[in-house]
Amino acid sequence: MNTKKYRVCGKQGFDLGGFSPGDTGGFKSADDAAEITKRNIDELADIQDRLYADGRTAVLIIIQAMDTAGKDSAVKHVMGAFNPQGVNVYDFKQPSAEELSHDYLWRAAKVLPARGKIAIFNRSYYEDVLIGKVHKLYEKQNLPDRVKSKDIIELRYKQIRNFEEYLWENGIVVVKFFLNLSKKTQHKRLLERIEKKAKNWKFSSSDLKEREYWDEYQEAYQCAIAATSTEHNPWYIVPADKKWFTRALISGVLRDVLHDIGPEYPKLSEEQEAELERCKRILDEEDL
Amino acid sequence: MNTKKYRVCGKQGFDLGGFSPGDTGGFKSADDAAEITKRNIDELADIQDRLYADGRTAVLIIIQAMDTAGKDSAVKHVMGAFNPQGVNVYDFKQPSAEELSHDYLWRAAKVLPARGKIAIFNRSYYEDVLIGKVHKLYEKQNLPDRVKSKDIIELRYKQIRNFEEYLWENGIVVVKFFLNLSKKTQHKRLLERIEKKAKNWKFSSSDLKEREYWDEYQEAYQCAIAATSTEHNPWYIVPADKKWFTRALISGVLRDVLHDIGPEYPKLSEEQEAELERCKRILDEEDL
Repeated sequence: MNTKKYRVCGKQGFDLGGFSPGDTGGFKSADDAAEITKRNIDELADIQDRLYADGRTAVLIIIQAMDTAGKDSAVKHVMGAFNPQGVNVYDFKQPSAEELSHDYLWRAAKVLPARGKIAIFNRSYYEDVLIGKVHKLYEKQNLPDRVKSKDIIELRYKQIRNFEEYLWENGIVVVKFFLNLSKKTQHKRLLERIEKKAKNWKFSSSDLKEREYWDEYQEAYQCAIAATSTEHNPWYIVPADKKWFTRALISGVLRDVLHDIGPEYPKLSEEQEAELERCKRILDEEDL
Repeated sequence: MNTKKYRVCGKQGFDLGGFSPGDTGGFKSADDAAEITKRNIDELADIQDRLYADGRTAVLIIIQAMDTAGKDSAVKHVMGAFNPQGVNVYDFKQPSAEELSHDYLWRAAKVLPARGKIAIFNRSYYEDVLIGKVHKLYEKQNLPDRVKSKDIIELRYKQIRNFEEYLWENGIVVVKFFLNLSKKTQHKRLLERIEKKAKNWKFSSSDLKEREYWDEYQEAYQCAIAATSTEHNPWYIVPADKKWFTRALISGVLRDVLHDIGPEYPKLSEEQEAELERCKRILDEEDL
């Protein structure tokens, strides 16, 4: 599976419009992609076990998207493969008063993964350059006047680049997914949420309100992704009109990323080997 | 009180050796400096009240020094002036296993001050480029090999500069004090901790062990201060052989910094004024 064509690792010439939400990477149907998705997911579980035992590297998975693009579904179907002991999912919804009184990275920095672990951010600090940009939320926040300058969003791009560079340099690998949905598919999925009883709870009339800002959001994603895609901290533009392909691709990217990290079960020193032998003898001699 | 001569705000030509630990800024005795220290401290309490009400800016005070330089004493005698509701003191001692499994800024980032508040870091993330450098602690940590490169300390200087720049750009003002003690005065104070019963608890034989690395620590401070002093996030080199001058100077610097922030009680809008009047009338009409 060629995951590279969905990878953005430099701002030069990035054009979100060049990525098709309906792309299925050559697969014809859900059945066609099912086998590779399953293989990826099995492998993920296997490498995660080594990541946890190795304990030298952490992984931070960021998922950003418009409503109904399939963030929750990706977490459930792909990340569900992980042993929950080594994984934490965080939903970044509307910030609390306490969170708003802190620097905007605070609520994310607090829950960064320990080495050996995986954290999944369902939305993230990128909201501060997405909804924050579209609705100019910073204007209403209690910030010093000097902070509310007109280049605040550009400054945040730089701050986020520096933050993620710091993470990379400290053994925390960041993988960023933008689930790229078409306006037409969102229309269909919002209607489903209204028409199907079991999906009603996922619908909010504010989703329709945000849909009015579709173009502004696309522009905000274009700018944010262009400004924060780097060699070590790339974005992946994941076609989101077909959920089965979204899952296939995300599982493939994660497989590749974890494989590149190459975690290993810790090797024992000679003393540790000898100690294990000693313990084995004690157990062997037990009179059961 | 001229606090500027103790301020380092650029790496150009910084030489720790040029700062005398015995300097008393022209004051002749503790009594001579007592009045100005008291005035500073009174003013601090007053500005802090406005900082808290204003709620737009936070202050992070970092204190670093060799053992016995007077860190605890500075916290007690200067910062004791603050209303404890708006202040939190954090001691960064030997990191826990959980802290070591995270990025090294994690334990500090978690407890950054909310806007309107003051945090005091008694020691800080600078330990990771001080004791961390002197004893090459990173070599023993469970980090990916690529992280344990020989430029790890230089990378951390950059990471800390970026981190503090981010704080400045988000309304968190960082003030950094290095309490500059002479080796001779440390000798005297360590002896006191052994000889005076009430001070015994503060003595640990490991302090003597660290004293053997005096020159390496001075070198580490020289490099760290040179690399992380910036216009917005300067270091102050505070003479520490006379505690009364240490306090006078720290109180003066904090007064100046808080004064420059210039916090103000929030101004009410016309609607808010009218609402206050309305509430006043309701209270006036109460039949008591």
